[in-house]
Amino acid sequence: MIKVGIVGGTGYTGVELLRLLAQHPEVDVTAITSRKDAGTKVAEMFPSLRGKYALTFVEPQSAHLDKCDVVFFATPHGVAMAQARELLGAGARIIDLAADFRLKDPAVFSQWYGMQHACTDLLEESVYGLPEVNRAKIKRARIVGNPGCYPTAVQLGFLPLLEAGIVDAAHLIADAKSGVSGAGRKEEMGLLFAEASDNFRAYSVKGHRHHPEIAQGLAAASKAPVGLVFTPHLVPMIRGIYATLYARLTDTGADLQKLFERRYEGEPFVDVMPAGSLPDTRSVRASNTLRIAVHRPQGGDMAVVLVVEDNLVKGAAGQAIQNMNLMFGFAETAGLTALPVLP
Amino acid sequence: MIKVGIVGGTGYTGVELLRLLAQHPEVDVTAITSRKDAGTKVAEMFPSLRGKYALTFVEPQSAHLDKCDVVFFATPHGVAMAQARELLGAGARIIDLAADFRLKDPAVFSQWYGMQHACTDLLEESVYGLPEVNRAKIKRARIVGNPGCYPTAVQLGFLPLLEAGIVDAAHLIADAKSGVSGAGRKEEMGLLFAEASDNFRAYSVKGHRHHPEIAQGLAAASKAPVGLVFTPHLVPMIRGIYATLYARLTDTGADLQKLFERRYEGEPFVDVMPAGSLPDTRSVRASNTLRIAVHRPQGGDMAVVLVVEDNLVKGAAGQAIQNMNLMFGFAETAGLTALPVLP
Amino acid sequence: MIKVGIVGGTGYTGVELLRLLAQHPEVDVTAITSRKDAGTKVAEMFPSLRGKYALTFVEPQSAHLDKCDVVFFATPHGVAMAQARELLGAGARIIDLAADFRLKDPAVFSQWYGMQHACTDLLEESVYGLPEVNRAKIKRARIVGNPGCYPTAVQLGFLPLLEAGIVDAAHLIADAKSGVSGAGRKEEMGLLFAEASDNFRAYSVKGHRHHPEIAQGLAAASKAPVGLVFTPHLVPMIRGIYATLYARLTDTGADLQKLFERRYEGEPFVDVMPAGSLPDTRSVRASNTLRIAVHRPQGGDMAVVLVVEDNLVKGAAGQAIQNMNLMFGFAETAGLTALPVLP
Amino acid sequence: MIKVGIVGGTGYTGVELLRLLAQHPEVDVTAITSRKDAGTKVAEMFPSLRGKYALTFVEPQSAHLDKCDVVFFATPHGVAMAQARELLGAGARIIDLAADFRLKDPAVFSQWYGMQHACTDLLEESVYGLPEVNRAKIKRARIVGNPGCYPTAVQLGFLPLLEAGIVDAAHLIADAKSGVSGAGRKEEMGLLFAEASDNFRAYSVKGHRHHPEIAQGLAAASKAPVGLVFTPHLVPMIRGIYATLYARLTDTGADLQKLFERRYEGEPFVDVMPAGSLPDTRSVRASNTLRIAVHRPQGGDMAVVLVVEDNLVKGAAGQAIQNMNLMFGFAETAGLTALPVLP
Repeated sequence: MIKVGIVGGTGYTGVELLRLLAQHPEVDVTAITSRKDAGTKVAEMFPSLRGKYALTFVEPQSAHLDKCDVVFFATPHGVAMAQARELLGAGARIIDLAADFRLKDPAVFSQWYGMQHACTDLLEESVYGLPEVNRAKIKRARIVGNPGCYPTAVQLGFLPLLEAGIVDAAHLIADAKSGVSGAGRKEEMGLLFAEASDNFRAYSVKGHRHHPEIAQGLAAASKAPVGLVFTPHLVPMIRGIYATLYARLTDTGADLQKLFERRYEGEPFVDVMPAGSLPDTRSVRASNTLRIAVHRPQGGDMAVVLVVEDNLVKGAAGQAIQNMNLMFGFAETAGLTALPVLP
Repeated sequence: MIKVGIVGGTGYTGVELLRLLAQHPEVDVTAITSRKDAGTKVAEMFPSLRGKYALTFVEPQSAHLDKCDVVFFATPHGVAMAQARELLGAGARIIDLAADFRLKDPAVFSQWYGMQHACTDLLEESVYGLPEVNRAKIKRARIVGNPGCYPTAVQLGFLPLLEAGIVDAAHLIADAKSGVSGAGRKEEMGLLFAEASDNFRAYSVKGHRHHPEIAQGLAAASKAPVGLVFTPHLVPMIRGIYATLYARLTDTGADLQKLFERRYEGEPFVDVMPAGSLPDTRSVRASNTLRIAVHRPQGGDMAVVLVVEDNLVKGAAGQAIQNMNLMFGFAETAGLTALPVLP
Repeated sequence: MIKVGIVGGTGYTGVELLRLLAQHPEVDVTAITSRKDAGTKVAEMFPSLRGKYALTFVEPQSAHLDKCDVVFFATPHGVAMAQARELLGAGARIIDLAADFRLKDPAVFSQWYGMQHACTDLLEESVYGLPEVNRAKIKRARIVGNPGCYPTAVQLGFLPLLEAGIVDAAHLIADAKSGVSGAGRKEEMGLLFAEASDNFRAYSVKGHRHHPEIAQGLAAASKAPVGLVFTPHLVPMIRGIYATLYARLTDTGADLQKLFERRYEGEPFVDVMPAGSLPDTRSVRASNTLRIAVHRPQGGDMAVVLVVEDNLVKGAAGQAIQNMNLMFGFAETAGLTALPVLP
Repeated sequence: MIKVGIVGGTGYTGVELLRLLAQHPEVDVTAITSRKDAGTKVAEMFPSLRGKYALTFVEPQSAHLDKCDVVFFATPHGVAMAQARELLGAGARIIDLAADFRLKDPAVFSQWYGMQHACTDLLEESVYGLPEVNRAKIKRARIVGNPGCYPTAVQLGFLPLLEAGIVDAAHLIADAKSGVSGAGRKEEMGLLFAEASDNFRAYSVKGHRHHPEIAQGLAAASKAPVGLVFTPHLVPMIRGIYATLYARLTDTGADLQKLFERRYEGEPFVDVMPAGSLPDTRSVRASNTLRIAVHRPQGGDMAVVLVVEDNLVKGAAGQAIQNMNLMFGFAETAGLTALPVLP
């Protein structure tokens, strides 16, 4: 049993970590912090956890995070990088669910997140936590930058095409749709039920913070910079990301179905569906599975890749636990075997 | 490992049984039937089960249900009672999620369900599967009539008051609300998204089939016939039952909070919340827990009991598994330990 | 054409007033205020109004409200009573959609709203704007206290029974359900889509501010104090109130259907549905109509009254315009003839 | 006052026609047909229409449609073309909301709809009812083929770019999203609330019947065949279409904002929003307005056009009434002036 700490446990990724970790056979959650709600019992804020957690939210300084084997940061960006050095020094490992350790170029980080990076040496050491790309490195990592929800879906959908070099990488389109929980648990007008329900809209069309993260991963796969239009939309549903990806084939002879099946063969959490499949988000609800279907509508020169994931699981807390499993030598699927909830 | 068969697996209770049983350490689902969809793979109809079930729906006659240790009927009423005698004879036990073994009086069954009961002797032998009331009998039962979704919530909410004899049992009111999955997976106009969404309505106000089932249980608890007005409503949500129960106190001195806490002390799936609590359905979503809060608004003479459950779990498949656990001597919570999914 | 001013136009009742008044043949909206959003164009905040309103939100002091014929207050409580005297002095009439002029007893107002009433003389003069009860008085009123959303539905549902004196007025139960817009356009955690969607819960079970308002109206109808348990619930839908009302009949011989039909004969916005009907909220969505069905389940001694309204129309802005029509001698239905939006 | 008949009035476009026509100053709905529900009162099936329509659904043969000035067909494809000749002969004009008079090439019609066209001469005579393209012809038409919901949004979004000849017309992408009412009022498993809610999915990725209709219109605008990938998705909302359109600019110097503003100048129902705008579907809910915003993300060579409409209004019944207004010389906006319902 390892000791786990969670910084910033009152958001949706925090409570999802708690839900999943309660079912993990190898961990003991020993500390959870919240400045705002210090003193409140976890099970009082989230009655769904009644009877499973006796924990109380505490101030970060009284959390004894340095005694943890691993600390998850379920915080806004900027928090993990401020505490990373000290925790590493005390022997803890770090999985940051925010953006501090995702973008390898500190200048790009500054540009999109509006602050200087606090520890560029640690940034260099850190590993981007996409197991399907970086599994070996994650196993040895002290710091993992857990991918964003959109980037997980968009990268895994485009990767086989880019690695095979069979699409026009300069004109990729990711038309992505997210459930409302993707925006976090925060009191914003646009996230109110009466605003977001029975409604649909794009947002951040000019530029979304996940753009550079996606571009970084796609460039690595294609061994060259890529051109990407990324259009996120808000769907009136709680959980789920649906990415509809468009890439123009430069080689229309390729067997796309085989390409995808081979790329993800043996991956415990990537399900390449049979040819012709139409995935839906609920088929992965509350699970760490990501499903992909690849199409070539009317036999034309456009590949259309459909990807679904649960933004809070494979897109956040579940992938973080998958990374923890790799880092600590547990079974990669430990704590992540529950089936999707349908309906 | 016991062998489990499921009759009628294409509805919501069927797929929920499959979801939950996949996580049960002691069972192996060996057969699942569907007349309409025989030949279809389970994981093709329900992609959420991909990779976990290799089963194919088969015709009932080729399912070898007589080789099962237990058979769940997730069918319309009338099916279980037609097959019960033969299965029992072959040594299988039966858990019927429909109404065939819920109402002890065959005349009442005929009146509400429009058909004669096919095996009144087995009806007499059968046990009503509400563990909080009949745990000892369930352990020895060959046939369990699994309670309806509304009856589970309404009975467990009223029981402490009726057993204590402190309310006017002739004028009970159950104002109950259900998510749409409670109506089953069937193509009905009123259940369409465009009809049921952004909408709220009562239904079956003149008389709902769960009325006699609830009345039977409440009468047993109060040792006298009860008067009950039961008003079901349809809520634009997928899962969840919310029962708001009203009973006029004949003894306003009773400590209701203590009464409820004592009644359900040690119950693994009934959570009596602290005084003043306001449960919500999502706090039990996808779990077998039922939560209760008891109020006396403005200190008056009306007890208001608030009950939440997931209609597909504690209200159907989960409770059926809880009953199976009791019947086979497994831990009562086996396969039912996953936490509620929130948000 | 009369000149209309709106104070506090950025909430849901404000924007609903704008939507409905744009279709009113006799009015010209000349001013709309918002401290927070002064300077913003109305059609910029609410693109649904693009092309119909050139208005800009202004500070209250620059709105020239004293030049209006009527001023609607779509503000929190406490605002209207602070400005009422001055506006009346300038010759404007006032319709307050908040609570300042609803409760006749200033002590009750203080108790529930936590502030002293600022102008008890005007409170005495003001008229409670429920046209089905106070039509004649409203026509002559200078100040109208527009009823709350729940109180409109609950009062109109109970009134015929209480006026006829055929129910036990000491034990009335109003189990009421509201769409989320009823809570207003404010950034509260519990109103987020990811919190309120696929969920159902009661709230304010201990006591809701609409309780004294309802009790006041019911007492007037029954000519004696009433006992009322009022349980509001939050429904995952945008608009709509559904009230399920329970009253024990002291005279079970009464023809309830006729009683209700007679009471509301000729009422332009109250639709008593045929015996056996089950109203749904969408049948009144975006319209000023309120529908009622009255039942006696299983011929027992409990009357069950089902009432639906749109909380933003008959429960707020529509009723306010109905009151304005009465006050200014317009056709009572002017501007309110659009049909409900279904689906 | 003209006499209006509606064939097939029990679907969503039928009831929407009734809702809108009730508010039209120049028409009298004299007949409405339904084979299945003949004898049922319109207001009984749709309580939202109570008090506004005394009509009863009748069999087509007893509807006296030949006495109507105009007949709307809100039926499946194949019905209008079977009755068109007779009605025209009797002097009635026809607006078909299905596909019989949309596709100019009968071979394409056969290919996608699986039946021969019954009256190719009338097809030739008929006019495609997109007023922003064919206004003059519609005014003189005897038969109008009312555009599909997706085609209206996608065509109006692409037209300015294609007419200006500044995009690569061989690689257009329309990623479109529709509310569930777009699928019609029919009992299909996938349209159930418990299936479609809290879920998102693409469908008909291989080929949707609206594809040839869109392609026909775009080809006419670009004066050459176009290449189009059209991906429809189902959104858990009742009404609304959101089209996210991608076209690669061959001339990156063009002022897209001006181009769109000029193209739709004076159009009563097309709102080109200010540069940088992000439309949402609720901003047009229940209204005939279609809103467009045009973007060039990060100043690249891809134009991204965002289009919203209400699929039942501008995408069906509203546009049909707009066409009727043109055909009969009424004000083009008659009966269509109600504002969008928000929230």
